[in-house]
Amino acid sequence: MDDATAPSATQATFEFPAEPAAPAPENIRMPQSAKARSKPTQGKKKAAKASGPASAETMAAQQREISVAEFFARNRHLLGFDNKRKALLTSVKEAVDNALDACEEAGVLPEIHLEIRQLSEDRFRMICRDNGPGIVKQQIPNIFGKLLYGSKFHRLKMSRGQQGIGISAAGMYGLLTTGKPVSIVSKTGAKKPAHHYKLAIDTKKNKPDIIEDREVEVPWERGTEIEIEMVAGFNRGRQSVFEYIDQTAIANPHAAFTFKGPTGELMEYPRATEELPRETREIKPHPHGIELGVLMKMLKETRATQVGAFLQQDFSRVSSSVAGQICQKAGITARTWVNTVDPQTAEKLYQALQDTRLRAPSTDCLAPIGAEAILSGLLKGIKAEFYTASTRPPTVYRGNPFQIEVGVAFGGDLGGSSSSDDDDNGSVGKKAKDEPAAARVIRFANRVPLLYQQSACSTYKSVIETKWNNYGLSQARGAIPQAPVVILIHMASVWVPFTSESKEAIADYDEIRKEIKLAIAECGRRLGIYLRRKKRRAHFSQRRDVFHKYIDEVVEACRAMATFNKDEFRRSLVSLAEQATAHADIEFDEHGNMIQPKEQAERTLEHTVIVDREGEPPAGQLGLFATESADTNGGRKKKRAKAAKGKTKKAKSARKR
Amino acid sequence: MDDATAPSATQATFEFPAEPAAPAPENIRMPQSAKARSKPTQGKKKAAKASGPASAETMAAQQREISVAEFFARNRHLLGFDNKRKALLTSVKEAVDNALDACEEAGVLPEIHLEIRQLSEDRFRMICRDNGPGIVKQQIPNIFGKLLYGSKFHRLKMSRGQQGIGISAAGMYGLLTTGKPVSIVSKTGAKKPAHHYKLAIDTKKNKPDIIEDREVEVPWERGTEIEIEMVAGFNRGRQSVFEYIDQTAIANPHAAFTFKGPTGELMEYPRATEELPRETREIKPHPHGIELGVLMKMLKETRATQVGAFLQQDFSRVSSSVAGQICQKAGITARTWVNTVDPQTAEKLYQALQDTRLRAPSTDCLAPIGAEAILSGLLKGIKAEFYTASTRPPTVYRGNPFQIEVGVAFGGDLGGSSSSDDDDNGSVGKKAKDEPAAARVIRFANRVPLLYQQSACSTYKSVIETKWNNYGLSQARGAIPQAPVVILIHMASVWVPFTSESKEAIADYDEIRKEIKLAIAECGRRLGIYLRRKKRRAHFSQRRDVFHKYIDEVVEACRAMATFNKDEFRRSLVSLAEQATAHADIEFDEHGNMIQPKEQAERTLEHTVIVDREGEPPAGQLGLFATESADTNGGRKKKRAKAAKGKTKKAKSARKR
Repeated sequence: MDDATAPSATQATFEFPAEPAAPAPENIRMPQSAKARSKPTQGKKKAAKASGPASAETMAAQQREISVAEFFARNRHLLGFDNKRKALLTSVKEAVDNALDACEEAGVLPEIHLEIRQLSEDRFRMICRDNGPGIVKQQIPNIFGKLLYGSKFHRLKMSRGQQGIGISAAGMYGLLTTGKPVSIVSKTGAKKPAHHYKLAIDTKKNKPDIIEDREVEVPWERGTEIEIEMVAGFNRGRQSVFEYIDQTAIANPHAAFTFKGPTGELMEYPRATEELPRETREIKPHPHGIELGVLMKMLKETRATQVGAFLQQDFSRVSSSVAGQICQKAGITARTWVNTVDPQTAEKLYQALQDTRLRAPSTDCLAPIGAEAILSGLLKGIKAEFYTASTRPPTVYRGNPFQIEVGVAFGGDLGGSSSSDDDDNGSVGKKAKDEPAAARVIRFANRVPLLYQQSACSTYKSVIETKWNNYGLSQARGAIPQAPVVILIHMASVWVPFTSESKEAIADYDEIRKEIKLAIAECGRRLGIYLRRKKRRAHFSQRRDVFHKYIDEVVEACRAMATFNKDEFRRSLVSLAEQATAHADIEFDEHGNMIQPKEQAERTLEHTVIVDREGEPPAGQLGLFATESADTNGGRKKKRAKAAKGKTKKAKSARKR
Repeated sequence: MDDATAPSATQATFEFPAEPAAPAPENIRMPQSAKARSKPTQGKKKAAKASGPASAETMAAQQREISVAEFFARNRHLLGFDNKRKALLTSVKEAVDNALDACEEAGVLPEIHLEIRQLSEDRFRMICRDNGPGIVKQQIPNIFGKLLYGSKFHRLKMSRGQQGIGISAAGMYGLLTTGKPVSIVSKTGAKKPAHHYKLAIDTKKNKPDIIEDREVEVPWERGTEIEIEMVAGFNRGRQSVFEYIDQTAIANPHAAFTFKGPTGELMEYPRATEELPRETREIKPHPHGIELGVLMKMLKETRATQVGAFLQQDFSRVSSSVAGQICQKAGITARTWVNTVDPQTAEKLYQALQDTRLRAPSTDCLAPIGAEAILSGLLKGIKAEFYTASTRPPTVYRGNPFQIEVGVAFGGDLGGSSSSDDDDNGSVGKKAKDEPAAARVIRFANRVPLLYQQSACSTYKSVIETKWNNYGLSQARGAIPQAPVVILIHMASVWVPFTSESKEAIADYDEIRKEIKLAIAECGRRLGIYLRRKKRRAHFSQRRDVFHKYIDEVVEACRAMATFNKDEFRRSLVSLAEQATAHADIEFDEHGNMIQPKEQAERTLEHTVIVDREGEPPAGQLGLFATESADTNGGRKKKRAKAAKGKTKKAKSARKR
């Protein structure tokens, strides 16, 4: 953490009259003169306050409210602003996540333009524009100038944002480090005017401070544009904005991105599908998820007048008959008035709720990426030879529905790359290129890439616990497999249990880890089959080569004979060879047994793609994916070259430090 | 994390009208009937809202403020309430920390009574009373019924609390899990009435909800008593309330504790010294610690009218002459009016501040425990044969003064115990007793024990990076030493950089880690000397035994002679033997050379104690410590026996799960 958390930086803002000076202790090396000189300075402000030990009264005078903005300003590392590089990435992440959420809620195919300008060595400006619904004028100040304000916290529904902190925190970080306000332009429709705001966040009050507010002309029709200037650092490779966008494109094939980097290069990520993710549905809490105190609160606040109605309306999975049973167990009836329920009864009701068997929460609140979208994403983003993906059925942890998806890419160009990007300094180029390729884990939560704190993440632990040797990959105990493989893991949930506000790692629940490992196993098995087949085919095509080698010689030898048709003769010999080594064309199942062509077709379609070394999916399988995949693939090549150059550059500069 | 974070639990409280229902996806296994039935329930509330994709307007309608209480209620795991056992420990911790802070600020020797009553299998009531100054009536509701409210956040001064969250969060957890309000009784003086409050925290508004408010009679004269009922779990051994109190007593020898456990046993921890920790002094921010945006904010808010005065009054280490230089560099004068400073000038001023060399921040804001107090604490708490401690001089990280102290105890009864308590499930009895004893690390931040997330803590990393083999202990690469040793580490700072709100681990700053390792090295070297001496002395006393063996025989043999004085003869022979093996009495320095008695005396006094196997410090050294140490030592023995019993019990029940 070279340039990490600097609470001191912000403590300045929140000064309080000093306490009476204690005698400077002996064990502190400070010149007498210094002490002497520093006293008057301290003295001035203390005149007012009583000296000597504090009493209840003097202490009361010091008590005051701490605004959540002050709190996070000082604890900014909790929000992902603990060093310059991470600060930039976090800001981009918050801006893009909000943009995607807004577009999807409005049913618009997202089109996001991101730009990062370098103003000086450690000064950057981030600009992010979307084609979303825009934000109504009155809401802009609060959404961007107030922490803990938003629309997503108060509902049980899958979305990227949860807390209503992110984007305003980014703005606050910019303000604290540069003194520059955040700039927002929003347009809610073609006919509507665009509003331009400049906002500073008043940390003492956690309130927006409107610096500028006017109507402006913009070339675009609808959407929101945010601009933040901040002290930051820009890197490439692992844990960089590049990696974030790459992975976001993979997990959001319905979104189109353009990214203009500080050195002016422009990158385009066209969308891979015209289909929006399924609209998710908000659910009610499940009775088995709640606690007694919460139940009491709900009883106070419900709109229902009778307990039966309350149970049906405010919870999911409670039918009128079930509600009846519950009330009976609690010694009341469904017609009992809610306002007559005393604490004792409430406790009985709570017990009854816990003792009654109920259906698991409904899961249409989730919108998984889908195995095919993951495949097409991997095909676009990663140059391998084998791809497979699988989506688990939804399930539940602690009353929260969730769903796990896994994609695996193997071989091809992956051979070269290195892995284990689990250093939170975001330092890159750590590993030498010639090291044996190790597996790489790409993590997502509600379609958002997670780039930090890998080893603390449930997904990573699951990968380590998987027995990859069974699938033909080498793996040391307690380590990730040493093989050219990329493992993509996505958790979709109405509530992702993050280990910190910076939302960098998924907490390690047993139910979650179990699901992840099951999904990995599914993909692993398919990979195993492929590797076994490959081995056998290699064996037989060797034999065939031998045959071919001799054919021509035989042909030559028989030249002399009369009525000899050279071509026909070769043809017959070749077909002979083909038959003799027919195995080379045959597919094998996991047990190495032959399988019938029809069967084959199905198998290959089971969310699995095998690509020739050129990296283009075989024509037969293209149907599986958006037609872009091929050309974007091409476009991608150039880009990768660039990025690679950048990476090595970065590695150098990193060494310089 | 068996019973970890349960956001679902609290989501219930914050419901919103549901979104239009999306078609249930095919891949969800849910009986048709279920879907059909669940619809009407969902339907009711939707009537009001427009269906179809959201617009800027409909989305605006959903925007709302999130109270910090709601936020932490749902993210309670961030505050240390992520499972039942931890919830109890965290509550105790917050209550005791506040009690100690209050007493010390009021200059009172703390006397704290803690009690934990078990009401049912997973229902507990925690009661904590102190002899502090009490709290003025008007402040009680906010201090206990409002998150982010307190007196410690807004000053640069060492204290246990920092955030103004802890105790109200504990109350909120109790409320959410049991529906029971927090109960507080406070008395600010012998003549003053005691006030009794029952408070519920209104999570929606983050405001206290006064359930009861009356005057009461209490048998005690002054102080505060808090009572929280909660769903919790009680354990012994590692990461238990016992361990927390044990360690708190070590780090706070000036405090007296009594602890009544759920099984009724009463434990007493008398104070080991009548001396309060040095009163600390609040400091101003150091110019090198701040950022541009913050400087601008300070310029806006300062009471000073001229830049020169502003720099001197609002920062530490800025004399009038230095202020002059800075202004000059910035192209202004000390007499320039503060309100005429525009952003450009502010930026120049900021640069000037950074470019000017200044003295490091003053460090009388720190109150270390002190090497001798640490020694007496270790002597009381740990039965070893060798003890040493050292306190580093204060230094600074990112503008924040801090100070590191380390204590090391070796051998004695430590042989048996096991270590590596780095599992956040708080599960105990993990290691078998017969395993080789491994080092144990005891961590403190501002005198508060840290019991969780050891491996994430800078202190632990420092222990691992230390080369213990140099000090005569065996250590595997990248592991803690395998030896019967306890390493105590304390960081005192105006701002401890915790890795999360639950304040469980110290962030890994280079400056901090460096200091910790230096302090460890100091103690390590002394341990090395002791172990080397021990070896040599053993060698020579062997030789002496041989001599003694023969003396008696010689004496017998000479019996016949006339004028033979048996005793005298033996005496002379013995003294002969003594001389021959004089080495056995000699001390050696680190190079194994003899050292003179005088020198010896000094050495042994260098914050080091060597105790005979009975565990009582030799009389000569008792002077070093409060006279209690001996008898409390005795009292302690009983207690340990008890605790041990408890541990094994616990281990069993853990297995049952």
